[in-house]
Amino acid sequence: MNTEKHIVSSFDRDLEGVQAMVMKMGGLVEAAMLDAAEALDTRDVELAARVRRGDKVIDELEERIHEECARLIALRAPTASDLRTVLTVMRIAANLERCGDYAKNLAKRVPVLNEMAMVAGATGSIRRMTKTVVLLLKDALDAYIMRDAHMAQDVRMRDQEVDQMYNAIFREFLTHMLEDTRNISACMHLHFIAKNIERVGDHATGIAEQVIYLVTGAMPDEERPKDSAIPSIGTEAG
Amino acid sequence: MNTEKHIVSSFDRDLEGVQAMVMKMGGLVEAAMLDAAEALDTRDVELAARVRRGDKVIDELEERIHEECARLIALRAPTASDLRTVLTVMRIAANLERCGDYAKNLAKRVPVLNEMAMVAGATGSIRRMTKTVVLLLKDALDAYIMRDAHMAQDVRMRDQEVDQMYNAIFREFLTHMLEDTRNISACMHLHFIAKNIERVGDHATGIAEQVIYLVTGAMPDEERPKDSAIPSIGTEAG
Repeated sequence: MNTEKHIVSSFDRDLEGVQAMVMKMGGLVEAAMLDAAEALDTRDVELAARVRRGDKVIDELEERIHEECARLIALRAPTASDLRTVLTVMRIAANLERCGDYAKNLAKRVPVLNEMAMVAGATGSIRRMTKTVVLLLKDALDAYIMRDAHMAQDVRMRDQEVDQMYNAIFREFLTHMLEDTRNISACMHLHFIAKNIERVGDHATGIAEQVIYLVTGAMPDEERPKDSAIPSIGTEAG
Repeated sequence: MNTEKHIVSSFDRDLEGVQAMVMKMGGLVEAAMLDAAEALDTRDVELAARVRRGDKVIDELEERIHEECARLIALRAPTASDLRTVLTVMRIAANLERCGDYAKNLAKRVPVLNEMAMVAGATGSIRRMTKTVVLLLKDALDAYIMRDAHMAQDVRMRDQEVDQMYNAIFREFLTHMLEDTRNISACMHLHFIAKNIERVGDHATGIAEQVIYLVTGAMPDEERPKDSAIPSIGTEAG
């Protein structure tokens, strides 16, 4: 049996290794999101194809993190609080894997949308929203690494902006569709993309809440102030 | 120190308890999906509100499963294969929690859609698709409990049907929008709902793949035969 000290430092070293993988995964997801939004905006099919292929690497990284965490738990038998950290790491990796899927789905729609007439301004709006969301995701991961509950709380609050951007985009697309029915098909795809990006914001919030739980020992209690993600503009077209 | 035998049976007993919670969670998610689709089809705002409130219970159950699994790992220090089972349980619970969110999101749109004119046949199509998906989810969970890789493989294959149903619904909505622009707003919401239900099918597939991994020790290798989830009908309206 190793000494207590030795066990602790081995755990810390292993955890650092896993955390490095999570940060790498975060970087890949951020790049994938930005590249996908750029490919959409510039109609760059090559870049979109690269994003699609890149998702495999993100998925494999999540699988490795998962296995590494399992190995860590089995070998090091971490204490309650260390165990909580490992389980949080696994959850964050799962959140990132979903975000990678959203980037891939966005990229998949690029060649489809290239077959259609452009919708004025739409892809620019989506690209701006993507930048906001990616920054949110980045800050959520930084909050994790620094165990900074205040920063995490800030991420939760800022997700509201993303919801507002999504609602504005929904209205924007709706007017394009009403003005010209030839825009309908493209706008349905674009609406989808916007909603997926909004979901990445929700995942950033999810990561932030895990950080708060990790630091304070309690999940943030009240519902975060959230703009309804369902624009209630029924009567306009109803 | 307890004997090996005692440790094993304690672990099995604990695992059974957690699995019972997962199956309960599965039952709640299935009911939430069906209720939400019924509320949509019958414009039943009360039922929709009940589904929304019910999601809290599903979320709490996932939280309890997560904690129970962490406790189980910390207390019983399971072997590699038992540890893999526990981690699978956690992943399945996370999948179910997402499905619960989709049911809640569907229910949220019921009052919004009630403000709009009905789109002929649309909610009926969605309800049929929901029934197919719920059956898939049920079979995925049964495959887990019975550790039945063949059944899990069958779930993977059947998800194709769901993708086909989604594509058909996408086309159905598109024609409604092209025929009458007053349908656009409602169809955007309905399209969203259809996509979310299709995603529940993906989660059922995800659970099935976990089962295959658990039983065979390897993830299913090739991409499952999947109908593209992006209907490429650009030229129709482009």
